[in-house]
Amino acid sequence: MTYCLALRIDEGLVFLADTRTNAGVDNVSTYRKLHTIRAADDRVFVLEAAGNLATTQEVLDCIHRDLERVGDHESLASVSHLFEAALYVGRLSQEVAGRHEAALEGGAGSATFILGGQIAGTPADILLVYPEGNYIRASDERPFLQIGESKYGKFMLELAVEGKVDMPTAIKIALSSMVSAARANLSVGPPYDLGLYRNDSLDLNEFRFPADSPLLTRLAEVWEKILLDAVSELPSITPEDFIVSSEE
Amino acid sequence: MTYCLALRIDEGLVFLADTRTNAGVDNVSTYRKLHTIRAADDRVFVLEAAGNLATTQEVLDCIHRDLERVGDHESLASVSHLFEAALYVGRLSQEVAGRHEAALEGGAGSATFILGGQIAGTPADILLVYPEGNYIRASDERPFLQIGESKYGKFMLELAVEGKVDMPTAIKIALSSMVSAARANLSVGPPYDLGLYRNDSLDLNEFRFPADSPLLTRLAEVWEKILLDAVSELPSITPEDFIVSSEE
Repeated sequence: MTYCLALRIDEGLVFLADTRTNAGVDNVSTYRKLHTIRAADDRVFVLEAAGNLATTQEVLDCIHRDLERVGDHESLASVSHLFEAALYVGRLSQEVAGRHEAALEGGAGSATFILGGQIAGTPADILLVYPEGNYIRASDERPFLQIGESKYGKFMLELAVEGKVDMPTAIKIALSSMVSAARANLSVGPPYDLGLYRNDSLDLNEFRFPADSPLLTRLAEVWEKILLDAVSELPSITPEDFIVSSEE
Repeated sequence: MTYCLALRIDEGLVFLADTRTNAGVDNVSTYRKLHTIRAADDRVFVLEAAGNLATTQEVLDCIHRDLERVGDHESLASVSHLFEAALYVGRLSQEVAGRHEAALEGGAGSATFILGGQIAGTPADILLVYPEGNYIRASDERPFLQIGESKYGKFMLELAVEGKVDMPTAIKIALSSMVSAARANLSVGPPYDLGLYRNDSLDLNEFRFPADSPLLTRLAEVWEKILLDAVSELPSITPEDFIVSSEE
């Protein structure tokens, strides 16, 4: 598995991805899942990938080949809207998975992507590209996307939305969400790749948090203390709260 | 889906189950998933069920029929250890699912159970019964079990373990875990059934928290406040925490 997330906040976009890959529990490795694609001067894309590693690598290779190749074919340099970029990635993903479908069981070759970034003249945004090639945009009410092992850390992202946080806080919440998922699920693990995009900058800042990052340890400690302290703040149960029941 | 949990603490056992069932999103109903079985004077069992509702109902009916029927067949009154009760429930579950297997697709008829309780002379315990008929016991390090939509509320139960809480606090944490799961997943919903077992009492206290229980609202509010306050307590990120990175 994998855990990748993207948040859209007022200042821009926050991307975070783990790097653990596994083919069974005895074949664990580290691969980058957050990729920056500077397709042209007027645009920057971030692609986060979950699913079959061979498929995601082949999709990335096709994206770069299409950018290098001379001609009037579609590429991330030719599209004029983010949704067209999402459809293009979705088409590549379907084509790649389709080529290996006969040899792989069921949907084993499929991949899911988060595509984010900005094309000059259009707003920065984040989109989720399904293995079927279609896409959805993050909503205004829930301006984040997750792929992979998303359930454990979801409440943290809802918190960021609820709190209307700035970018430094959004980063801390994103990392907290990642640490929660990694704690609960061995298939998610460090180092973690962070991408920060400020609206209209058309450039991405990239950071990597290694497994021994002091911040990851501090975050885990602070959350544990906050949650343990919280136990004493929980309201008492009174007789109005329940019905004494019995099945018989 | 469903969310049922059981906690083993020093004083006894805590069981909590939601009541929402659904066959598609347009066929949502309310069914009890926490069942108390007073099989004989020297024993009490709690059975929590997730999976195919028809299978869990037929398993329960078979359990009660075996208790009523005269003879030397196996039943929850005849077993002498909790693990034998778990194997008995597992066998019934396999038989029932097997009878309907041809008519149902794949594993659509399967069910998973948490069985807990006590037989006099043996310790109170909780066991998880798999659709395959085998079982596991909750460990000493992680003395809780979950079935159904378990990922969203798992961190709350880990908190209870971490904090070595008493029964009143364990109830509040169990309800918090339930509220988290219900908030994230529409297929989990109130009313919630709570079962409390004090070691060696050989009796169970049962309570139901209706959807309009003031406690559920208070718990959700307090958690939201605690988590929003937590955001300001998270440690700052310093340059020692990360590496400035780039793919190229």
